[in-house]
Amino acid sequence: MFQNSSWTGAFFLLGITVGSAMEGRPAVAIGAILGLLISTTTGYILKLSQEEGECGLWGFNGILVGCAFPTFMGNTPLMWIALILCATMTTWVRTGMNNVMTSWKINSFTFPFVFCTWVFLLATHSFDGLWGEYMSSPSLYNDFSHDTNLSISHLLDDWLKGISQVFLIGSWVTGLLFLIGLFISSKWAAFWAAISSGIALVIAIGFQASGINVANGLYGFSAVLTGIALGCTFYKPNIRSAIWAIIGIVVTVFIQGAMNALFTPFGIATLTAPFCVTTWLFLLPRLNIDNPASHNKHSERHRPDHSHWHKRNTTQKKLEE
Amino acid sequence: MFQNSSWTGAFFLLGITVGSAMEGRPAVAIGAILGLLISTTTGYILKLSQEEGECGLWGFNGILVGCAFPTFMGNTPLMWIALILCATMTTWVRTGMNNVMTSWKINSFTFPFVFCTWVFLLATHSFDGLWGEYMSSPSLYNDFSHDTNLSISHLLDDWLKGISQVFLIGSWVTGLLFLIGLFISSKWAAFWAAISSGIALVIAIGFQASGINVANGLYGFSAVLTGIALGCTFYKPNIRSAIWAIIGIVVTVFIQGAMNALFTPFGIATLTAPFCVTTWLFLLPRLNIDNPASHNKHSERHRPDHSHWHKRNTTQKKLEE
Amino acid sequence: MFQNSSWTGAFFLLGITVGSAMEGRPAVAIGAILGLLISTTTGYILKLSQEEGECGLWGFNGILVGCAFPTFMGNTPLMWIALILCATMTTWVRTGMNNVMTSWKINSFTFPFVFCTWVFLLATHSFDGLWGEYMSSPSLYNDFSHDTNLSISHLLDDWLKGISQVFLIGSWVTGLLFLIGLFISSKWAAFWAAISSGIALVIAIGFQASGINVANGLYGFSAVLTGIALGCTFYKPNIRSAIWAIIGIVVTVFIQGAMNALFTPFGIATLTAPFCVTTWLFLLPRLNIDNPASHNKHSERHRPDHSHWHKRNTTQKKLEE
Repeated sequence: MFQNSSWTGAFFLLGITVGSAMEGRPAVAIGAILGLLISTTTGYILKLSQEEGECGLWGFNGILVGCAFPTFMGNTPLMWIALILCATMTTWVRTGMNNVMTSWKINSFTFPFVFCTWVFLLATHSFDGLWGEYMSSPSLYNDFSHDTNLSISHLLDDWLKGISQVFLIGSWVTGLLFLIGLFISSKWAAFWAAISSGIALVIAIGFQASGINVANGLYGFSAVLTGIALGCTFYKPNIRSAIWAIIGIVVTVFIQGAMNALFTPFGIATLTAPFCVTTWLFLLPRLNIDNPASHNKHSERHRPDHSHWHKRNTTQKKLEE
Repeated sequence: MFQNSSWTGAFFLLGITVGSAMEGRPAVAIGAILGLLISTTTGYILKLSQEEGECGLWGFNGILVGCAFPTFMGNTPLMWIALILCATMTTWVRTGMNNVMTSWKINSFTFPFVFCTWVFLLATHSFDGLWGEYMSSPSLYNDFSHDTNLSISHLLDDWLKGISQVFLIGSWVTGLLFLIGLFISSKWAAFWAAISSGIALVIAIGFQASGINVANGLYGFSAVLTGIALGCTFYKPNIRSAIWAIIGIVVTVFIQGAMNALFTPFGIATLTAPFCVTTWLFLLPRLNIDNPASHNKHSERHRPDHSHWHKRNTTQKKLEE
Repeated sequence: MFQNSSWTGAFFLLGITVGSAMEGRPAVAIGAILGLLISTTTGYILKLSQEEGECGLWGFNGILVGCAFPTFMGNTPLMWIALILCATMTTWVRTGMNNVMTSWKINSFTFPFVFCTWVFLLATHSFDGLWGEYMSSPSLYNDFSHDTNLSISHLLDDWLKGISQVFLIGSWVTGLLFLIGLFISSKWAAFWAAISSGIALVIAIGFQASGINVANGLYGFSAVLTGIALGCTFYKPNIRSAIWAIIGIVVTVFIQGAMNALFTPFGIATLTAPFCVTTWLFLLPRLNIDNPASHNKHSERHRPDHSHWHKRNTTQKKLEE
């Protein structure tokens, strides 16, 4: 299992490296590795839960911080200092958020990355030392003209970019490498990643989202994470969980659209917040999806306990992020 | 009790139908019935708590979604698809939110409706397929000129509209039908609805809110819900709870004004969020309003337990929403 | 202890009075005293926890409301009515927030003041009766030109203003009086106040924040509160807690910058929210900072319990705010 996870991790890092090289932004790959090292080291220094550290659960928020900073900010020394501080933060912010969320039987997912990165993206507006070179300007309306003329010949591209954007990279090669990495450790995870990006594409086109956003996979990445989470991580793969996951994917697309609008006046990206919010909304009711047989005579039903999921599903978890 | 509630529900649906017909927007009434059916059906399919279903607690968020969508969006097929998705969501989002809030001894009230509807209202800015025809444009300042020249001859109108706007309808006939419906099931609820809309009117005029908003009852509807909740639902009607409810009504007006300003850059409505926020603020301290006699020698006081309220007060509850 | 606290309180009130007089805004000092009286009286009327009342924990949110209202709003009769309502609110909002936060072993700090004041600051945009005379206009970008040419000869001034701004006053005399007041009751608190304002100044200049903001101490005040909270209130002063506090001070500066940007479209101030958010983030992981020796064989560590802090540290607490 852990070996699977190692191979998967290798494919993911390869995907990030290839993608960032193709975009001419090698700093993204360097940031990812630095973020991974910093956040994992922080976990050891603070002597947080040993078990989590061994499963690599300290690192994924750090990798994402490392991808996000050079994606949005100019490559300056102060950016790297801020990146290190932010990657460090994610480790204990994760512990803190999980302390709160455990009583609701949910998990912080990628929200430590999202929250800490928002802080620094917003701070680019206040500090000239942090240069939001690749961020949109704050405005009252979405910047993109709503041209929905997507070229059909590029739909395959768009679909794979929806997967690669999980790590903020818009490249079909990276998307393919991620799919292979997922397939090695879990066929179900690869299946749901592929399905989710496809459904998100259809819904976004059907409701006429901005063509440029759709083409860059920006409606896909959160849906991919939601699909893997609901379709095969928190519930066993079956027809009931499949329906639940598909509804979740569709809802993610609307929450993505809503958050795009919500953040327009601040000029910051939603990151993977739509995935976090949607998956929380779908886990909090504690529906009895795995055991439909166990009927409930009275008003209180047996509630599935998600608290053990990170023991059973650590590989999945790592992939999912 | 349930019969009372049925009669009240009938008056409410009549009020919605008459009001939407008078405004030339029959889609609002159709949406309300569709939302009610969808959200209640969802509860049965997901096998949520039977007890809640029988009391009609699955339906009120769905009705409100059904009123809100045609009120703010153009009447297109995609709008109806979104309405159905949103009405479905409210049922399990309600279960999820209540799972979180139960430990604080509060309830989600209408917040599932508010949250899910905000998602789709914001999404109108990102999807050309959802047409925010009747929404304000995002702007940095409140759109309305601050003319506070309210005509005194219309004050009775304005007062009844404050009640009808609970279901997003600006019609004095609807307000009157709602009052009659409330009176049938609970004289206290009707009393507090009337008082609350009046106090809200006085405060909004006194602090010189936009005359157009005041005239449309937009400072009244959340105050009406707060008044019924604090004055006769969560606390027994007596002099202490009356004072508490009046303070709550006044605070609701300021939270309404604050949220109007907060949402101006996003071009969305506050819906009944000011009621939810205010009532949470007034229930969370768990003040000993019902039993003033039980003094407390030490620092810890007896805290009233609100968890049983939905058993005792289901009729009230339904009215309240 | 209480005597110490009385002397400290006296120096604080003196500082506020002198500072507001020097700024030609005596209403600030009057507001502070009125807010203190109103919020403390509310605690007695509502019969909230006696113990908290005796330690003066009802009053500090009220004092801050009293300082904030005349600082941001024009001096009109309706402003004073709103001030009284807001100061009253903070007392039970504090009880309510603490009821929620106790299960996470954190405290509401100054957030009742922050939240209630935000409501009324936002409401100035909706009610002509509340006049936001000294507030910035809502805009998409920070108003201040990013001139970072701070005069070195004024750095001592800027440093002391970082301390005085805890009570929204920009005066080095007030900062000095606050330091003396702190020193009387706790040398560690005075030490951390001084250190924190200095570190915040260096970071804000290093990352090139707006010179005008830095000169007015606007990056210092939340950092001062974070430094006292983490350096000597929630953890015993030692090398480990000192490192933790310094990281907290640095993070506060970035959260301050982020919130400045976040609130620009609404034209309201962050108040002490950056302190609250940062300190919550640093307390929620429940790091074992006081007892490094107690190693943890398994994945679960001994978690320090902060719930008793307000008994041990009431004086500190009062100072801290």
